[in-house]
Amino acid sequence: MKECKITFLPHQKQINVPPGERLIRAALRAGVHINASCGGEGVCGKCRVLIEEGQVTGGVSERLSAEDIENGYRLACLVKVTEDIVVRIPVESSLDNSVMTHQATPRRTARIQQMDFEGLKEEGHFIPPVEKLYLELTPPDPLNNLPDVTRLVEHLKVDAGERGLEVTLPVIRKISQVLRADEFKVTATLMRPVRSGGKNIILNVQPGDCTGTNYAIAMDIGTTTIYGQLVDLATAKCLAEAGDFNAQISYGEDVITRIVYAEKGDGLGRLQQVVLGTINSVLEKIFKKSKIDRENVSTITFSGNTTMTQLFLHIDPSNIRRAPYVPSASLYPPFSAKELGVTINDHAIALIYPQVSSFVGGDIVAGVMGSGMYKEEALTLFLDIGTNAELVVGNKDWLACTACSAGPAFEGGGIEFGMRAAKGAIEDFSIDPMSFEPMLFTIGDVRPKGICGSGLITMTAVLFEAGVINNRGKFNRDLGTPRIRKNNDVWEYVVAWKDETQLERDISITEPDLDNLIRAKGAIYSGCMTLLNEVGLTMDDVERIILAGGFGSYIDLEKAMVIGLLPEVDAEKVVFIGNGSLMGARMSCLTNRIREDVFSVTKMMTNFELSETPSYMDNYIAAMFLPHTEIEKFPRLQARMEQRGKVRVG
Amino acid sequence: MKECKITFLPHQKQINVPPGERLIRAALRAGVHINASCGGEGVCGKCRVLIEEGQVTGGVSERLSAEDIENGYRLACLVKVTEDIVVRIPVESSLDNSVMTHQATPRRTARIQQMDFEGLKEEGHFIPPVEKLYLELTPPDPLNNLPDVTRLVEHLKVDAGERGLEVTLPVIRKISQVLRADEFKVTATLMRPVRSGGKNIILNVQPGDCTGTNYAIAMDIGTTTIYGQLVDLATAKCLAEAGDFNAQISYGEDVITRIVYAEKGDGLGRLQQVVLGTINSVLEKIFKKSKIDRENVSTITFSGNTTMTQLFLHIDPSNIRRAPYVPSASLYPPFSAKELGVTINDHAIALIYPQVSSFVGGDIVAGVMGSGMYKEEALTLFLDIGTNAELVVGNKDWLACTACSAGPAFEGGGIEFGMRAAKGAIEDFSIDPMSFEPMLFTIGDVRPKGICGSGLITMTAVLFEAGVINNRGKFNRDLGTPRIRKNNDVWEYVVAWKDETQLERDISITEPDLDNLIRAKGAIYSGCMTLLNEVGLTMDDVERIILAGGFGSYIDLEKAMVIGLLPEVDAEKVVFIGNGSLMGARMSCLTNRIREDVFSVTKMMTNFELSETPSYMDNYIAAMFLPHTEIEKFPRLQARMEQRGKVRVG
Repeated sequence: MKECKITFLPHQKQINVPPGERLIRAALRAGVHINASCGGEGVCGKCRVLIEEGQVTGGVSERLSAEDIENGYRLACLVKVTEDIVVRIPVESSLDNSVMTHQATPRRTARIQQMDFEGLKEEGHFIPPVEKLYLELTPPDPLNNLPDVTRLVEHLKVDAGERGLEVTLPVIRKISQVLRADEFKVTATLMRPVRSGGKNIILNVQPGDCTGTNYAIAMDIGTTTIYGQLVDLATAKCLAEAGDFNAQISYGEDVITRIVYAEKGDGLGRLQQVVLGTINSVLEKIFKKSKIDRENVSTITFSGNTTMTQLFLHIDPSNIRRAPYVPSASLYPPFSAKELGVTINDHAIALIYPQVSSFVGGDIVAGVMGSGMYKEEALTLFLDIGTNAELVVGNKDWLACTACSAGPAFEGGGIEFGMRAAKGAIEDFSIDPMSFEPMLFTIGDVRPKGICGSGLITMTAVLFEAGVINNRGKFNRDLGTPRIRKNNDVWEYVVAWKDETQLERDISITEPDLDNLIRAKGAIYSGCMTLLNEVGLTMDDVERIILAGGFGSYIDLEKAMVIGLLPEVDAEKVVFIGNGSLMGARMSCLTNRIREDVFSVTKMMTNFELSETPSYMDNYIAAMFLPHTEIEKFPRLQARMEQRGKVRVG
Repeated sequence: MKECKITFLPHQKQINVPPGERLIRAALRAGVHINASCGGEGVCGKCRVLIEEGQVTGGVSERLSAEDIENGYRLACLVKVTEDIVVRIPVESSLDNSVMTHQATPRRTARIQQMDFEGLKEEGHFIPPVEKLYLELTPPDPLNNLPDVTRLVEHLKVDAGERGLEVTLPVIRKISQVLRADEFKVTATLMRPVRSGGKNIILNVQPGDCTGTNYAIAMDIGTTTIYGQLVDLATAKCLAEAGDFNAQISYGEDVITRIVYAEKGDGLGRLQQVVLGTINSVLEKIFKKSKIDRENVSTITFSGNTTMTQLFLHIDPSNIRRAPYVPSASLYPPFSAKELGVTINDHAIALIYPQVSSFVGGDIVAGVMGSGMYKEEALTLFLDIGTNAELVVGNKDWLACTACSAGPAFEGGGIEFGMRAAKGAIEDFSIDPMSFEPMLFTIGDVRPKGICGSGLITMTAVLFEAGVINNRGKFNRDLGTPRIRKNNDVWEYVVAWKDETQLERDISITEPDLDNLIRAKGAIYSGCMTLLNEVGLTMDDVERIILAGGFGSYIDLEKAMVIGLLPEVDAEKVVFIGNGSLMGARMSCLTNRIREDVFSVTKMMTNFELSETPSYMDNYIAAMFLPHTEIEKFPRLQARMEQRGKVRVG
């Protein structure tokens, strides 16, 4: 009997099975994880997979929508394999997205900067970009039968002193019905111009007085996650938020693999549809949570990196990854959200954060706006660390920026037991200085199943300060603990023994893991040094460091300095802002002042390509040690090391 | 055996047939015309009908597209009826659209005014609304890797002195590929602002130098017909034109029945789809004829009456037909043609002529613009005659307008042998003053099958001057000709005997026909008088009359004055402009000056509702004679009548 070949995407793993094999069992054998909490009886509906090639038997269930079924989705636990097939595991069927139910709460290792809306108000910068006006129009009669739009516009001009009014097609389409629904009492939503003298666009009309309900959405389109917030424009309060993994993950973990996918066939269209799917499902969650009528949302502000923005807008991203790294656009005009495929209502306007360069995108611009660094005297270094790290330095007078590729180590990639920051990830760690036995803490306080990026940093710092590893990331082979061992020709430290874990094996940190981490932190540190150097400054000139991004917020600051990921500065100089991209998007929702400023900020941000900066490689090589070739640059650590050396010697 | 009931739409005719009857034979018996030139063997494919309710046997043919078949279209000649059905006869299956292959050529009974483009040029008013600029950009390099849009905008600013540039989503989507297709040599299409200081919108980018090919489309959306022209923006020449019946005719002949249809269920959506179908098929013909690449079309200007415009834009028209007759909008902002469902390309902008009131629409505004009356000293009366007649009076300083319902007589409705101006329609007529025998001419010089509107006017005038009918439209019973007879209790004049016609019966003009014509012409004449009266003028003050519209152009001017449809004026005061709506649309395509002027013209046009003007009814009753109660108002006719009276007496 001929075997059937199953190819699992995006993992590219293949396995041969006898005909009639259940797909979920085959996945288990192939080492492909598919969520299946019900034991595989089609009850939980979590094991939704996409049959991309070939035919299967079974797998149709009322747990799937008719649309899903038509598009080729099946429940893996109900599918029998009868021929060669290609199966894609969607992100939601393989990832633990319980971590999405709340925003990352930053660690308390540094000051946390919240959005300063009150400050904006006090400075008189609160110019709502969207305003609702309640109007009582004179109903038409035989001697005054002006067109409905004309009647509204004239009223706004004469009675409300408005100027430069322009109307949209959705408003023209609904105005006649809306005016007559409540005796020509109507609420008009006006979108204010960014610059004075611009157009006041009549975005919406609603019957009666709806001035009390005026909302906006802020949304961060991350490579990994998409977060949205519903904002009340009267109070600046966030009424509901939701997030989810960006479903594009199924097509590649990082921006480069997604660009490569977009270049093939209709890959671009596919990736656009997929990210729209996540965006719309996040919106769905927000509206469900908040019970807000989506008709009352007038704008949605998106911030994302250059690749995410171009994929979302269906703009060919291929030049982003090719020297000299040219994005298609920097500034985007306002679009109709509906036209972009975003499901809110007919009239909402989509505002897109501008990009500076191929690798310094709208998420960073939003972070700069959200943090307020562009309007302060203090020289600030802004860092957003992930697979790519983006750096901005400057103040109210000038801004310089760059980006460097850190590799996937901080997100668990290339690390033997690496994983994303989800339940079971080791996030904190210490060891006994004598026995070298560890104490560890996991997210969710469950048995460990891996090490997340911030856990890896902490672990490395702890092991380094305890003398378990040296400054090149090699284990001290002479400590006499069974935890340090050579396994398959690789030296490692066993963090947790098999029976303490959720896995079938010991969890360890290996020398190749440490190599990868050192390369990643070296790239970021040398990026900082090179950027400062290019603008004629040193770290001593920096008065403030802002750490943005979910990962940045999770880092133990002191530990990051120990490994030389960050320069050694006073803790009070450092602030965490969490998701700076989302914060900036939310501020743009709230005041036109930000929308106005963002144009000049984007122009002000001078971009440096590290590949064009010869000193970068020298800086990089010097940073390939823990913490650095020149330990003098880390005086506090140096002092502690010397102290400990004395103790141990003594 | 139970009979099957067939309901034919839009005629609302019903017939019962035995099961198994061929649909085309049933139609013949019901008096419903379906084109079938092949004798009903499914060969010509012209008898396409839509089965709206019920199931039929047969009728599927390769002459129908798969889409048609799925939507319920069948060939009537192949259909067998087996149960009760409702069948809609699409316009193209019942109308002779050979008349569409060329624009109506006006009769030579008055001066013809052509579009005065050279005049515009001489006056310095030729500001093309869309311009193509050829640019050679500096390709990016590692030290100059600005985003592609930024690179283009900077070049336009610095090297071409352009300002206020804004880019569209289609351009952002294609720019990266276009710039790289021909080494950063590119043609940018800029849409100029209507007012100075407005935005210059970058509508399109194309590789290489495409400045030689820059086109626009002008399109008149008439209730009955849709005409389009492709205009070369460099020479103002029309490169191709095409027309077709507005397929909405299947849902009602006039605007009121279409509004009623739009109010039921998704009638509005249906009518929008149907008119889009005609618009897109006219565009298809134009592109086929001209062999122009549709990528090089940047704008399309639409002019139509208020109802046609609202249906096209999917705007509920129900208030148009309800007192106090309020349209939804007057001015429309520019739209994306694609967004409106118009098939040109991704970037073309649709410009919509503004409306003055529910019954003085964009077609009339376009006619006023096309005729140039709004910028002349001479007091002009503009008339567009059809089912509705629209009247505008004024000059460069003021304009007043109104509309009146003439009823369908001029389009053949309510006339025993009335028909549209198509092959076989009697369009000219005279009689022997002694024998009262007729001489008649038909469109296409074939045997007559009916009487078109202009033919009816001529016939009535001739019969009146010959004393065959009196001033109340009653036949002289004492002339001793067999042509004047009482048939089914109705007096009539036989125009053509059965064996001279294409029909199975005599063609005649009846007293009820004459009643209907007198009511129609009375409505228009009294509309003119009432409008002039409201602005304190009389016909003697009018220095020029402009007749617009296909029907207006076909009228024999002298005959129209004989029946009192038009006041008696010197022929040289009258000009025909043909399709003024299309002329205006074409001029808007060519120069921004028209686009700028149209805003003030629309505001300047004071609308009078005749229903609100008490003198209208008095004027109407006075006009219910041939030519009028007061024959003194028609001195030339009066003189001729007196002369003839003398001759006869003598």
